[in-house]
Amino acid sequence: MAAKGTDIADFGAVKLLDRISTAFPISQPSTVSGIGNDAAVINNSGKQTVAAAQLMLEGIHFDLTYTPLKHLGYKAVIAVINKIYAMNAAPVQLLLSLGVSQRFTVEDIDEITEGIAAACKRYQLDLAGVDISSSFTGLTVGITAVGAAEADQIVTRSGGKPTDLLCLSGNLGAAYMGLQLLRREKTVFEANNNAQPQLEGYNYILQRYLKPEAQQETFNLLTNNNIVPTAMISAVNGLASDTLQICKASNCGVRIYLERLPIASETFRMAEEMNFDAVTAALNGGDDYELLFTVPLGMHEIIQKELQGVDIIGHLCDAAEGNYLITPDNQAVELKAQGWE
Amino acid sequence: MAAKGTDIADFGAVKLLDRISTAFPISQPSTVSGIGNDAAVINNSGKQTVAAAQLMLEGIHFDLTYTPLKHLGYKAVIAVINKIYAMNAAPVQLLLSLGVSQRFTVEDIDEITEGIAAACKRYQLDLAGVDISSSFTGLTVGITAVGAAEADQIVTRSGGKPTDLLCLSGNLGAAYMGLQLLRREKTVFEANNNAQPQLEGYNYILQRYLKPEAQQETFNLLTNNNIVPTAMISAVNGLASDTLQICKASNCGVRIYLERLPIASETFRMAEEMNFDAVTAALNGGDDYELLFTVPLGMHEIIQKELQGVDIIGHLCDAAEGNYLITPDNQAVELKAQGWE
Repeated sequence: MAAKGTDIADFGAVKLLDRISTAFPISQPSTVSGIGNDAAVINNSGKQTVAAAQLMLEGIHFDLTYTPLKHLGYKAVIAVINKIYAMNAAPVQLLLSLGVSQRFTVEDIDEITEGIAAACKRYQLDLAGVDISSSFTGLTVGITAVGAAEADQIVTRSGGKPTDLLCLSGNLGAAYMGLQLLRREKTVFEANNNAQPQLEGYNYILQRYLKPEAQQETFNLLTNNNIVPTAMISAVNGLASDTLQICKASNCGVRIYLERLPIASETFRMAEEMNFDAVTAALNGGDDYELLFTVPLGMHEIIQKELQGVDIIGHLCDAAEGNYLITPDNQAVELKAQGWE
Repeated sequence: MAAKGTDIADFGAVKLLDRISTAFPISQPSTVSGIGNDAAVINNSGKQTVAAAQLMLEGIHFDLTYTPLKHLGYKAVIAVINKIYAMNAAPVQLLLSLGVSQRFTVEDIDEITEGIAAACKRYQLDLAGVDISSSFTGLTVGITAVGAAEADQIVTRSGGKPTDLLCLSGNLGAAYMGLQLLRREKTVFEANNNAQPQLEGYNYILQRYLKPEAQQETFNLLTNNNIVPTAMISAVNGLASDTLQICKASNCGVRIYLERLPIASETFRMAEEMNFDAVTAALNGGDDYELLFTVPLGMHEIIQKELQGVDIIGHLCDAAEGNYLITPDNQAVELKAQGWE
């Protein structure tokens, strides 16, 4: 390692990704789409093959004091297959790499695989490869998902055009508020081992954090209605960051209307209880596993009529017009992505 | 985690993999081959897509006190693409997942990606996806490789038949002795910070550990000579373990002839210097990144004549005859795999 160097947190994760990307020009004919989307697209002369990878690291992506191993296995699958759905492709195969330290037992691994198996059953997936190594430093779960789609169905982040509608499945900030609740109860428990966790009435936000689902339903609705979005992304880093990724890749600006942001009532209630701004949770919380996509303006009606659970939250515009959140009293707040987590 | 449970080291990594596999029956028509081979095989109506994943964990797969980050990046690619070659397929795309802790700088990441870029150039690969997360616990490198092959070219571990010849590219134990040398010099250095590492004369074994190459050449030789092995595996866990994997998957026994084991002179020399048995390094050392494969007996001549660098080291037999290493004085030593590392 360099004795001195540039701090990654200061530099920013997005800039770091750009920096890496420039070192890797695409050169192979079968690589249809590479870095900069949720998944790679590969053409082996049949359907397009779509592949994405995801690491889940202990202490970063999960805390085992409140994440059961079974849920961890399930969630790791959700995280990676939602990237395949975000390419408008169906995930089919998974590869699993586990790094486990000595404090884990065979039964622990059983629990993780139970969660993965439950996700495989729910989403019709085959686990097609497993690799286990020992680890000095806690639990590492690496999952790769491989999917397929016809070439003309693939959606990247870069096809958005000014006036396109910005659409979002489900709602935002729920998983983030669920996590805040779990953290609060952990702190209470650490201070007093006899304390019982106060989790009642918050099933929905806890479930959104602990056992999220992927957007197979939205993918199916799009397919069944012959809608191919112009751009799409797996919404996991908070609406601000995810929207800006589409804007950047599509060379567009954006307007999001604050009053249209879908936020569940439990999310609002928890935020209020914690003196936290629910809109901030929606914009920057992350872990939503929704689909954020754009469609041509003319699809306004079909989206509203046929895509249950999908909201139109704004629209793209010229890049020169910038990226703004519009409040109900018509103030424009610039959208900014959070840095390195 | 379970309060009490079965220790993974006692249980054994191979048994653990079997246990996991039984929880995941293959159900999707496009999954041609799943768990139990070096890579998954997927049929999306064109060429077969072959995918494999690999985790590299700090402290387990590498020690940064003697592994330069550039070499680490290079080696991570070698480890995963050799799995694709082991399916008799050509690797083409890579997906990279990095987990980096705060002690790493942007320049450190540059070094890792330089190594990956060098491997991409050397092996004509596209990096088609990158994902970076922060980490509390050192450096984690996850790489997925995707390749392609015609359906009738794919080789798994399970096609070996009694009398098939057991063939091996390159030589064994070199990387393991290189690692022992690095460890020795690290210990000396820790005892005396002014000590200069004594690495002269051991370039070959050091290179085999620090900057191994994948078996593109052997893959090309097989292809150019129209040889499709009956079974093949990426030789990384030591000859004993790797051979037993083929035997188990092919339901065969094996005879390996000790005097035919290819071991480089530097490997022998280092082993002697350290009072270590070079054959043990070959059988159990691992990290070789060679190809171990079987071909029908009738291919004896073409292998010897056309496959430069490949040795015939034994043959398969009936499973009932067991798995043995035959010494020059005709003693039969049972082949046993090492447990959890």
